[in-house]
Amino acid sequence: MAIVTLLSDSGDSDHYVAAIKARVLSTNPGLTLVDISNKIAACDIAHGAFVLKSVFRDFPKGTVHIVAVDAGGNKGYAFIALQLEDHFFVSVDNGLLGLVSDKPHQNLVELNVINPVNSTFPEKDILAPAAARLASGVTLSSLGTPLSSFKKMTDRHVKATKKQILGHVVRVDSFGNLITNIEKEAFDILSKGKVYTLQFGSEKVRRVHTSYFQADQGDCFVLFNSLGLLEIGIFKGNASELLGLSYDSPVNIIFEE
Amino acid sequence: MAIVTLLSDSGDSDHYVAAIKARVLSTNPGLTLVDISNKIAACDIAHGAFVLKSVFRDFPKGTVHIVAVDAGGNKGYAFIALQLEDHFFVSVDNGLLGLVSDKPHQNLVELNVINPVNSTFPEKDILAPAAARLASGVTLSSLGTPLSSFKKMTDRHVKATKKQILGHVVRVDSFGNLITNIEKEAFDILSKGKVYTLQFGSEKVRRVHTSYFQADQGDCFVLFNSLGLLEIGIFKGNASELLGLSYDSPVNIIFEE
Amino acid sequence: MAIVTLLSDSGDSDHYVAAIKARVLSTNPGLTLVDISNKIAACDIAHGAFVLKSVFRDFPKGTVHIVAVDAGGNKGYAFIALQLEDHFFVSVDNGLLGLVSDKPHQNLVELNVINPVNSTFPEKDILAPAAARLASGVTLSSLGTPLSSFKKMTDRHVKATKKQILGHVVRVDSFGNLITNIEKEAFDILSKGKVYTLQFGSEKVRRVHTSYFQADQGDCFVLFNSLGLLEIGIFKGNASELLGLSYDSPVNIIFEE
Repeated sequence: MAIVTLLSDSGDSDHYVAAIKARVLSTNPGLTLVDISNKIAACDIAHGAFVLKSVFRDFPKGTVHIVAVDAGGNKGYAFIALQLEDHFFVSVDNGLLGLVSDKPHQNLVELNVINPVNSTFPEKDILAPAAARLASGVTLSSLGTPLSSFKKMTDRHVKATKKQILGHVVRVDSFGNLITNIEKEAFDILSKGKVYTLQFGSEKVRRVHTSYFQADQGDCFVLFNSLGLLEIGIFKGNASELLGLSYDSPVNIIFEE
Repeated sequence: MAIVTLLSDSGDSDHYVAAIKARVLSTNPGLTLVDISNKIAACDIAHGAFVLKSVFRDFPKGTVHIVAVDAGGNKGYAFIALQLEDHFFVSVDNGLLGLVSDKPHQNLVELNVINPVNSTFPEKDILAPAAARLASGVTLSSLGTPLSSFKKMTDRHVKATKKQILGHVVRVDSFGNLITNIEKEAFDILSKGKVYTLQFGSEKVRRVHTSYFQADQGDCFVLFNSLGLLEIGIFKGNASELLGLSYDSPVNIIFEE
Repeated sequence: MAIVTLLSDSGDSDHYVAAIKARVLSTNPGLTLVDISNKIAACDIAHGAFVLKSVFRDFPKGTVHIVAVDAGGNKGYAFIALQLEDHFFVSVDNGLLGLVSDKPHQNLVELNVINPVNSTFPEKDILAPAAARLASGVTLSSLGTPLSSFKKMTDRHVKATKKQILGHVVRVDSFGNLITNIEKEAFDILSKGKVYTLQFGSEKVRRVHTSYFQADQGDCFVLFNSLGLLEIGIFKGNASELLGLSYDSPVNIIFEE
């Protein structure tokens, strides 16, 4: 039986998350529900997109993801269901889904067009039933009317040249580790045969580790993490607090021959 | 297979919630467990009652709800199982369940009377096994001895006349939105053909929205939410902080011909 | 179908917990996942060990526990799977598992020896697949190479004589209750026929309660809790804040003839 995941900014002290789950299970009690996170910062599409992008491919193909971050939406925003990299997503078209993959979508419909529901809680009234039906084997096309495109936003880009890579912190995780948008692939190509210096805050570092524990306790580590992204941390410490860096702080790599 | 939900003030950093779930699954590993919330404020019956009341009907009929807020109880409080609106509830009789529905109960027993267990963790030792047995098809009557009534508390009432509705904030949700006890039904009747002014904090508002996004970013919205209750918020902002209102703050509606 | 539990310090606002679960469900979608807690304080082995020790036996025998606290490990730490008290555990050998039971292990292997994976996210890449396979019926011995022992740390001991018991707070729970390492068994033997005084902070108490509600609201209670450990609290209050005690604070019992 298929898996339905939930990503939201609804927190864990209200009825919202349980209401969405109840609606899914009322449609099909045999579905498996898995929380991705309900503690995305309120209306924080960048945070939500980062978490979803980092994990959705770990689920089996065919998994249905309810994406309910800033789901109240804005005027004119559509509710959509789409198939992308063999996963299904239901969401409000607020740009979040446009950030999770560069691949073209395989299928896309607008929800809530036939017999539209006017709801102030669309996660429960529109997204949850659509997700439950998709996970129960209903085809995506039958859930709505075809749509040709959905909202794409431009994510912060890394500037990479032969002389330097200019990136940013894209997520401070709950350990205080600083995850950047600098990819291992680009670094490997550009650093070949070069001496390099990583600069962030007031720190200058000249090596990249391969394990967290290559740094001593209290010392800074820099490595490419399981997402293939450059990550900066303090071994057994909170790097964000100790280095004074946070979301969007610049992280640069300078190459010399 | 039936669903067992859990509502508690036990938090998420101790063994309590897992111990309750382990006991349920030890009795019947086929049951589906769903957290309503374990982040009800410690011993806060009003918070717990609001969340439970707002969501229990979204679950399929026959769902069993473990209600373990302030479950340590007080001297002389009984442990009860009851059927209400075709749902089952197991709880300590501390008044919380008396706040979730105006309907008469369909069935009510006192638990832990035959071979009583003396426990400092009754959620696990008394409520969890009773819930698991109920969800497995055991009849409520066979779980305890009949009881004629359970504890009812008087909730804060709304004062509604032709001239005004005087209500209060009953819940500040995790977005900072202010949910009041003013019901759409009463407002619709009393506001018919009238000019009205909503007053809360230092704000005066003369319209009710139907969508969150009818307000501009940073502006105040006022609408009847999915629970049919008047809700005040700041679009993409935290109304509780920005308006200086919190639990129990008065919200009034004045009608003029 | 077997249960897989998860204990981690990964928090609830990142992709880590969902990634571990996704890997388990990708291996076997029929497994039942239960969170013990993902809010163990970062790298806090004492916190993790206390929670795990307090709850693992409540799960059915054969349950598989993923223990991912401070899982980044240290240089030379092995990944292990072991059978203990008829439960299965997969973890990094950082000492946490050595604190949860005094019983000898029934079986122990080192994971990730044959075709080792070099991962900065071993919870997902090493522990999750091992747990899923164990829960699916694969034998522990076939998961790795035999190991004779795993890391044991010495926990803070209670000093108990005929004159006194000297203990400490080992956990402040989310209610602010202070759980100590003083066991009921020892107290029952040593206090027989004696007058006793409990001392903690500036308090002196001469009785032990059997229910939380034997104290009046705002008053201190002292009882042996469901774990058989001496617990100090304030009825409907936060004892840690009100008494100024926290993790590791001394709690003594003095006996007089």
